[in-house]
Amino acid sequence: MKIYVIFLVVSLFSSAFSDEPSILEYPSTRHKNPDDGGDEVDLHCTSWRFAAETNNLAPWQTIPVECADYIKDYVLGKGYVTDLERVSEEASNFASSVVESSGDGKDIWIFDIDETLLSNLPYYIDHGFGLELFDHSEFDKWVERGVAPAIAPSLKLYQRVLDLGYKVFLLTGRKESHRLVTVENLISAGFQNWDKLILRSPDEQHKTATLYKSEKRDEMVKEGYRIRGNSGDQWSDLLGSSMSQRSFKLANPMYYIP
Amino acid sequence: MKIYVIFLVVSLFSSAFSDEPSILEYPSTRHKNPDDGGDEVDLHCTSWRFAAETNNLAPWQTIPVECADYIKDYVLGKGYVTDLERVSEEASNFASSVVESSGDGKDIWIFDIDETLLSNLPYYIDHGFGLELFDHSEFDKWVERGVAPAIAPSLKLYQRVLDLGYKVFLLTGRKESHRLVTVENLISAGFQNWDKLILRSPDEQHKTATLYKSEKRDEMVKEGYRIRGNSGDQWSDLLGSSMSQRSFKLANPMYYIP
Repeated sequence: MKIYVIFLVVSLFSSAFSDEPSILEYPSTRHKNPDDGGDEVDLHCTSWRFAAETNNLAPWQTIPVECADYIKDYVLGKGYVTDLERVSEEASNFASSVVESSGDGKDIWIFDIDETLLSNLPYYIDHGFGLELFDHSEFDKWVERGVAPAIAPSLKLYQRVLDLGYKVFLLTGRKESHRLVTVENLISAGFQNWDKLILRSPDEQHKTATLYKSEKRDEMVKEGYRIRGNSGDQWSDLLGSSMSQRSFKLANPMYYIP
Repeated sequence: MKIYVIFLVVSLFSSAFSDEPSILEYPSTRHKNPDDGGDEVDLHCTSWRFAAETNNLAPWQTIPVECADYIKDYVLGKGYVTDLERVSEEASNFASSVVESSGDGKDIWIFDIDETLLSNLPYYIDHGFGLELFDHSEFDKWVERGVAPAIAPSLKLYQRVLDLGYKVFLLTGRKESHRLVTVENLISAGFQNWDKLILRSPDEQHKTATLYKSEKRDEMVKEGYRIRGNSGDQWSDLLGSSMSQRSFKLANPMYYIP
């Protein structure tokens, strides 16, 4: 198991600083013989993944048991990284197309952090890829290590967006007490020069992510910012009030946040 | 080609009135040998489909040329119908769970029509499954024939929602001049007892679907209705103002409406 973790971290980091996309491949453990029902499982689990990604399942707590190997293959194989590269490219194309930027510093791009800029795959490799119920205290320990690798295609988009003159606001469900470790993790993963890093204050812990993030976006709009793009792996990053001109949904078949 | 059309219409119609799900299968024409790059095309086109379904591509005009056979296989094979069945089941589960219905007749469910209740697959079989640019006048001729079959899983949901006591509002981008043929088509496909059928008036033709449908939902909310569910194959059916408590995105890899 640890072999996966080290391989993953190294490959994601290294690819973050090269032009090569990060392809995290490992030998599939699934039977793909059409005679043993593998195709039916693929069909069923692809349909589940489609339903999850389009928010048709909301809320859901764990991935279906029968899709455990499918999800593992997807996130460690070519599927996930292909999807991450595509959403990065589409967002980049849109960011470049917003030509009416007035240069007044009011055009902003919002990024979520977990499974958007930073990958918690090393954690999920050790916790069943979404098969286990979410364990706050275990996950906190992982966050506090501050070693989550960059999602390489998102780092590319991040740099592009800054180069184009957007202000970058990071809006995360992580709690304020994790500010320091989050800053250090972001910097060591290659992210710099953001304009705001917004974390949850203690009195915001009880709110849904949708409400908390909507309120933060409402404030941005009140301050005169134009939210041009919003990148997140959860619909609760994207939906609600003061929605972005364009929203970009990164794939995440491992967990759901309301 | 005509064989497909007849088979499709018959199988969709017949399954609409039985308990069996409609599985539209036809022999795949694609090479699936891993050595000939088929797997790479599948990966690429699956990624394109997910990007389209999560609204990351908006706006898009035609499907990618290299995905023409993939999309054809998806919509005529098991993939599309599996996805349609799942969204119907998820919506049905949610509809049943809204227990606080006060019985005041104000709980409503909105359905789009094209690719939500009625299938235009017979038209798209003859027009490249989204490979051709949309042709308003050709499509109008198809609509005016009034022979679009029911999407069987949606008919099941439709009946369930009515049985649960919701009012059903049909909100379509079709124009007012198509009211009669639309009513006749819906009835012959098995849909009855809706409470409102809202079509575009001539002065609404220039509006985006997102704006037109938002304005109509705004009116419903003003009239005191609670929009519990909204089923549509386009994000422009679902996003905007006065959004539904839960939205259900049906698959549609063939066209995009802003």
